[in-house]
Amino acid sequence: MSELRVRAEKLDAADELSAKRGEFVLDEAVYLDGNSLGALPANVPDRVADVVRRQWGALRIRSWEESGWWTAPERIGDRIAPLVGAAPGQIVVGDSTSVNVFKALVAAVRVAGEGRDEIVVDATTFPTDGYIAASAARMTGCTLRPVDPSEVPSVLGDRTAAVLLNHVDYRTGRLHDLPSLTAAVHAAGAPVVWDLCHSAGALPVGLDQHGVDLAVGCTYKYLNGGPGSPAYLYVRADLQDRFDSPLPGWNSHVDPFGMRGDYEPAAGAPRGRVGTPDILSMLALEAALEVWDDVSVESVRAKSLALTDFFLECVEEYVPGGRVESLTPVAHGERGSQVALRCDDAATVMERLIERGVVGDFRSPDVLRFGFTPLYVGFADVERAARTLAETLAG
Amino acid sequence: MSELRVRAEKLDAADELSAKRGEFVLDEAVYLDGNSLGALPANVPDRVADVVRRQWGALRIRSWEESGWWTAPERIGDRIAPLVGAAPGQIVVGDSTSVNVFKALVAAVRVAGEGRDEIVVDATTFPTDGYIAASAARMTGCTLRPVDPSEVPSVLGDRTAAVLLNHVDYRTGRLHDLPSLTAAVHAAGAPVVWDLCHSAGALPVGLDQHGVDLAVGCTYKYLNGGPGSPAYLYVRADLQDRFDSPLPGWNSHVDPFGMRGDYEPAAGAPRGRVGTPDILSMLALEAALEVWDDVSVESVRAKSLALTDFFLECVEEYVPGGRVESLTPVAHGERGSQVALRCDDAATVMERLIERGVVGDFRSPDVLRFGFTPLYVGFADVERAARTLAETLAG
Repeated sequence: MSELRVRAEKLDAADELSAKRGEFVLDEAVYLDGNSLGALPANVPDRVADVVRRQWGALRIRSWEESGWWTAPERIGDRIAPLVGAAPGQIVVGDSTSVNVFKALVAAVRVAGEGRDEIVVDATTFPTDGYIAASAARMTGCTLRPVDPSEVPSVLGDRTAAVLLNHVDYRTGRLHDLPSLTAAVHAAGAPVVWDLCHSAGALPVGLDQHGVDLAVGCTYKYLNGGPGSPAYLYVRADLQDRFDSPLPGWNSHVDPFGMRGDYEPAAGAPRGRVGTPDILSMLALEAALEVWDDVSVESVRAKSLALTDFFLECVEEYVPGGRVESLTPVAHGERGSQVALRCDDAATVMERLIERGVVGDFRSPDVLRFGFTPLYVGFADVERAARTLAETLAG
Repeated sequence: MSELRVRAEKLDAADELSAKRGEFVLDEAVYLDGNSLGALPANVPDRVADVVRRQWGALRIRSWEESGWWTAPERIGDRIAPLVGAAPGQIVVGDSTSVNVFKALVAAVRVAGEGRDEIVVDATTFPTDGYIAASAARMTGCTLRPVDPSEVPSVLGDRTAAVLLNHVDYRTGRLHDLPSLTAAVHAAGAPVVWDLCHSAGALPVGLDQHGVDLAVGCTYKYLNGGPGSPAYLYVRADLQDRFDSPLPGWNSHVDPFGMRGDYEPAAGAPRGRVGTPDILSMLALEAALEVWDDVSVESVRAKSLALTDFFLECVEEYVPGGRVESLTPVAHGERGSQVALRCDDAATVMERLIERGVVGDFRSPDVLRFGFTPLYVGFADVERAARTLAETLAG
């Protein structure tokens, strides 16, 4: 057995999170696409069956109260809160990430106030953030200024109305410096919106600690909420009273069943709600979050870095030099929980890798993307993935 | 047995939709709240279990293609289309009704073009429509003009940018005249947005026939999609190229996996999409819509009117004069599929009715609301509901 396989066995034996793997439904494949769609937590199917058969089928409308449907967006938000370093009462679940980016960015511009008319956005962002930012700019009379995250501090100023940034780049896996960028935006007198899609559940975020204003994220990647599970919105407690939503649906009203013609927003996190929440998707997410009950994000982060370190080492060892190039930073402080390898024939290579039981994904035009979910990926998986990649590249 | 009970038995025996009742999960209660949350179709639990266990649990990301997740919003839209009189390719499912009202209304204002700066909205609307219309007006530089639907024709003019109307009033059950109001708005040169929440699945809508521009609706009432199941957006085929969404998420891009920085909208119905669709809720809805496969909306409408006629007759017979007052129009052409009875102590009366196994709902401040879903409500249910109401009112 190769030295790396021996190392993998030892690392797995010493892994304090290894038992978590048993809480997921997995098969023989090495699943390195949890940064696209997290694997199914084993407790979800029975929960969803109960929601459908008993809560909907038998209790019907009574479930809005008796099964806690009405308060699910805030309740589940509070379950996500510790994973992103937020005290309770600041996160609400619902809608898609795109819709939440719109709410957050428009609200941020309104908080910034008159005279500030430029929205700064990460030019390397996941496209939807850029598209939605353009719409938010258009509808608030702002100009959109896309820049590389490294240039953000140099473009901030009196005109800055809001800044939208990704914590981890979806393509390269680069982790941006949330504390220092947040401080820079605040120094310019503007609010910042962080997109946590590729960091929440993989590494500490520290929203409260770093004074982040607003944040959004999806729940179907490292949080394993299921396909298209609802996204979330964080509004810092002391900003909530000034959160002026562009989507003031009846669910965000102070008295939603009063059916009043005049809009008066609720206090706190529910102000970020819009319409009726999608209960099936939402309660599947709630069940999925239970796997976090006895896990610290710090231990997840430690294992994540060990996994990606080990993967880079195995790739270096197994794959002929020059055949692939890592786009993911080597420094731990700049790395999320994925490794992106540039490779001319990436689309074909990923197809063959998947045929051989190693599931990552391809991102146009030439990126092999491998996500490492510490709750269910082990070191033997990592060694096998790198070895299979080398075999695949060898033809 | 009373004459009305004998009549009910005969009507049930002659009801061509009576077999549909067996396709739903029901119990001993008379469920007259399907206009809030439709009952569970019996095929949904197994479908949802398959989506969770096999599509998500085993196929994981492959399901975006192999299980048809990616195209679900358009595919399910096409299943709703015949129920609202729309040819295929014009309806997309996703997001909440509130979010779709925002998309539709902003897009309508943009279609109307320069110089038109007044959004006319039904002053008696379900609150969320009014709140969202106010936000759409604010963000497009328009003024909001709330008027009673009967006054709409008289306020239309060169300034009218868009009109938002409800097909059926959520409170009174009044059916508005969609063909003539649509024609009036068009005569003023503006587009109209119809909210079909309380009509779709209960009566013919005729979107294409009457040249409606845009429409939205929920799917958890007469379409039985489940709690918070996704809403839908209709954009008339010849308007789709001019549909300029305020929420241009990556799902509406012509090449979503190209991950391009510049936004280029897809053609057709997908242009109304935003972010990643909530697959569990969406595919539960798809299963729920199968009960419509062999049902015509016309037969549903005929039974709906027979049910509400019979209910009004039973109430007249059983309930002492003056104890309740119907807010629902007597004329068939002005009646949706619910009956609203005004009653001073409505909140208490509804609580007691529910205890006695007749489930309607209370709408503030003084309305008893009874919805009649022709697919699973029978005439014996109606007679029992009216009789129980009379007993409850008697103390």
